[in-house]
Amino acid sequence: MSEFGTLESRVRRKSLLNKVMKAGDTIQYFTPGQNLLWSGFTPAGYPKEVPIALADHVEANNLQGKWKFNLFVGASVGAETEDRWATLDMIDRRWPYQTGKNIAKGINEGRIRMGDKHLGLFAQDVSYGFYTENGRYDIGIFEVSAITEDCGLALTTSCGIVAEAINLCDKIILEVNTGQPSFEGMHDIFMQNKPPHRQPFLITSAEQRIGTPYVPCDPDKIVAIVESKRRDKGRAFAEMDDTSEAIAGHIMDFFAHEVKKGRLPENLLPLQSGVGSIANAVVGGLAKGPFTNLSVYTEVLQDTMLDFFDGGNLNFASACSLSLSETPGFPRFFDNWEKYFDKIVLRPLSISNAPEPIRRLGVIAMNTPVEFDIYAHANSTLVGGTRMINGLGGSGDFLRNGYLKIMHTPSVRPSKTDPLGITCVVPKAPHIDHTEHDLDVLVTEQGLADLRGMAPKDRAKLIIEKCAHPEYKPILKDYLEMASKECLSKGIGHEPQLFDRAFKMQQNLATNGTMRIKNWDIKIDLCE
Amino acid sequence: MSEFGTLESRVRRKSLLNKVMKAGDTIQYFTPGQNLLWSGFTPAGYPKEVPIALADHVEANNLQGKWKFNLFVGASVGAETEDRWATLDMIDRRWPYQTGKNIAKGINEGRIRMGDKHLGLFAQDVSYGFYTENGRYDIGIFEVSAITEDCGLALTTSCGIVAEAINLCDKIILEVNTGQPSFEGMHDIFMQNKPPHRQPFLITSAEQRIGTPYVPCDPDKIVAIVESKRRDKGRAFAEMDDTSEAIAGHIMDFFAHEVKKGRLPENLLPLQSGVGSIANAVVGGLAKGPFTNLSVYTEVLQDTMLDFFDGGNLNFASACSLSLSETPGFPRFFDNWEKYFDKIVLRPLSISNAPEPIRRLGVIAMNTPVEFDIYAHANSTLVGGTRMINGLGGSGDFLRNGYLKIMHTPSVRPSKTDPLGITCVVPKAPHIDHTEHDLDVLVTEQGLADLRGMAPKDRAKLIIEKCAHPEYKPILKDYLEMASKECLSKGIGHEPQLFDRAFKMQQNLATNGTMRIKNWDIKIDLCE
Repeated sequence: MSEFGTLESRVRRKSLLNKVMKAGDTIQYFTPGQNLLWSGFTPAGYPKEVPIALADHVEANNLQGKWKFNLFVGASVGAETEDRWATLDMIDRRWPYQTGKNIAKGINEGRIRMGDKHLGLFAQDVSYGFYTENGRYDIGIFEVSAITEDCGLALTTSCGIVAEAINLCDKIILEVNTGQPSFEGMHDIFMQNKPPHRQPFLITSAEQRIGTPYVPCDPDKIVAIVESKRRDKGRAFAEMDDTSEAIAGHIMDFFAHEVKKGRLPENLLPLQSGVGSIANAVVGGLAKGPFTNLSVYTEVLQDTMLDFFDGGNLNFASACSLSLSETPGFPRFFDNWEKYFDKIVLRPLSISNAPEPIRRLGVIAMNTPVEFDIYAHANSTLVGGTRMINGLGGSGDFLRNGYLKIMHTPSVRPSKTDPLGITCVVPKAPHIDHTEHDLDVLVTEQGLADLRGMAPKDRAKLIIEKCAHPEYKPILKDYLEMASKECLSKGIGHEPQLFDRAFKMQQNLATNGTMRIKNWDIKIDLCE
Repeated sequence: MSEFGTLESRVRRKSLLNKVMKAGDTIQYFTPGQNLLWSGFTPAGYPKEVPIALADHVEANNLQGKWKFNLFVGASVGAETEDRWATLDMIDRRWPYQTGKNIAKGINEGRIRMGDKHLGLFAQDVSYGFYTENGRYDIGIFEVSAITEDCGLALTTSCGIVAEAINLCDKIILEVNTGQPSFEGMHDIFMQNKPPHRQPFLITSAEQRIGTPYVPCDPDKIVAIVESKRRDKGRAFAEMDDTSEAIAGHIMDFFAHEVKKGRLPENLLPLQSGVGSIANAVVGGLAKGPFTNLSVYTEVLQDTMLDFFDGGNLNFASACSLSLSETPGFPRFFDNWEKYFDKIVLRPLSISNAPEPIRRLGVIAMNTPVEFDIYAHANSTLVGGTRMINGLGGSGDFLRNGYLKIMHTPSVRPSKTDPLGITCVVPKAPHIDHTEHDLDVLVTEQGLADLRGMAPKDRAKLIIEKCAHPEYKPILKDYLEMASKECLSKGIGHEPQLFDRAFKMQQNLATNGTMRIKNWDIKIDLCE
């Protein structure tokens, strides 16, 4: 018997117990080309036993490239599932976000068709039937903590898109996770109607609940119950470094300034913070004070959130997933269950990331891009403008709707041959995920540019002055002056650019290994 | 006495009658450098007498370039105000949208600092105090129909940002328009709190009202009441042409298909349609059938909306402004007042364009860009990537939040020397206002590309096949194949682009007057 309760104790709808089987026995339900929909979100609460059994089956039977599926999940899932599937050439379509070296390779070499969508919008559009020919999914595979007598599903460490999609799945396989405590009660599930019958999300504070703890499930659709003892393979949080700490420092100063100006209340407004070392440093800064009685309204809760709670400054956190590290995150959480459990609510992705509550609550949105340009367009997804990393995630959901829209990045990154070879402040972003119309504040370790109310050319001056690395400041200034002069003289200079050389830095990086160009000269022969 | 009632009958708070003065007498309140906030939206309901008196004053006293103001209005206003001000060099900052040859000239030559923002977001951020140093405005100039005993303002043909900003104005000048009927009762004003005290907008259908007909006003702030008999200088609607009609036809077919597929109800969902000849043709198509019991949830109602009502298919329209033409639009409206009045509600901009009701109602969003690219990024604002036309408007507010997100444009436009010289389907948009993550459907007279659930390279093929002009199809296909081959071979091909030639068509247009290039060859010397 498990220390966290038996399968029998978790499956309270007893008629389902005759559907219990080993993961390997579910292979019978799968055929190549199916549309599969999983629970899970930015690796938390995803099914493990069944995807691993399928991978084993493909591997054992040399079905690589023959058994391919279309995979729809709220966001990324553990590498032992999607990334292994990619290695085994088991993925045709993958929506809307992923992580893993092999899946990225498959996408960028053209074997995997990935679609990249605002996560919240994706969740909504799945419920509208926009992603498959008939709007349905062949099999839903969901990790659950428990099943109630009424066949309500208590989910585990994330909500993902289970609530949005459950009624669109023809067959359902449930993985009951008895390898960890039951998360029953942590979720706030609000089942939505389609327009024109949609109802408001009456969330007026991060802690407000509007639904029930369960996703209602049609028991006749459940074809298998599989016991799982595998835990989420969450990533340990990134280490802080001087750059991240400097960025966090600028943001703390900015918050203090905004409070002083009367534009933020003393306990700020609900916070959303992305993932990575900068987000980590920002949360670390907030954990230390001086702001108290804070709340979080975000999509992913990571390890640092535990420090934030422990420090006493954080009152409550709302998210779509509890994405702690396998160790030390989850053990720490489980050891202090009573302390954290009532301070967290997990919501369906289409609600955690919905414009409606994000705007109403006035969320402070903070995310890290690949780079931003002098006019405040940001690239969050495609390195060099063409190579997919992970995807847009929820950055747009929050940045477009936040009270304050903040992006932060180091001012430079190393290239292979030059420690300052890549500037994250460029003349023109080679791919644009967030436009100049959406961003309020840009931050690097060099400083913070508050762009609210600024016109493009003023914005460009301020961004170069505050955010660019000293090594790149003169180069960027030159560009801005040259482009302004040329475009203004022609009467086409609202937002000056020179398209023959706007990407010279990127081209130089490809050719010479650094974006530190010597001049802006260029000769182009159009070969007409 | 006016046929529409006297000034005395309109100003029901009698103590204000001793503040009645001629427009010219309000000059005393103005000093250069002030932040001015006007009523008005996409020319409707803007103040006329006072701005014209100020322009006369500047002209008479040779104050051009010496009396400059910062001008904040919901959107554009009549040319006799903002464009004349631009001619007289009276504008320093202008937010967030404008129309007029001279104001555009001033912006693109660097004399006027324009900020371009999602209109709904702008309205919200104004209320948060983000656009001026102290968040306040020196003078608010609002056109009203009437003033109640309680000093409630009944607005005229638009709501603009009066409700959002009225409490941030130090002085208020009211223009009471007795040159047209009173619009009292048409508005639904909901006064909002700032976060964390914001309340839901409980709009669950286009006709639902959540507020009162009046904007509450502090009478002590009113420094002048000016009578006006000037009417809005609204533009007559654009003529339909074969291209627009073909586009409208594709959209009608698409709606029918979606109804058949069960993805739209038989009476569709509330419609938003931009301005211009294509929007006109789409509304014209809807007016003719076959869909009935329709509703509109949009930002601007134009002349064609009257046909839509008259045809019997439109039940109700919600907007921020009633922007009819000076003739025949308004006279037709006034002559049939009883027929239209109860079928229209005008809302504050931050509500008409808010993500919350737009997502909840499931609005079908349709707008015209300058151009879109093969991956479905669209340019709505800057011709050639640098020259401002009007601004983003509400296109993003609706496209990002609609149930269906549709953009439509002719496949080609003429250049100065080539009737097919400009393709509106390009390899890479030189400015991006709407990203690939936001658009569902692209339409030209050539056809309709339904991009839902498609990965970038599949999207590109479909867009070229369905939307590009036959003259440009082979050119674009060549580019896609060439870029795909090169990027995929390097393992960087999620969204293939070649940055040395992505803008070759635009460069060729500048050099040779056409985007019809002979080949994709290019020689670049980086001059390192």
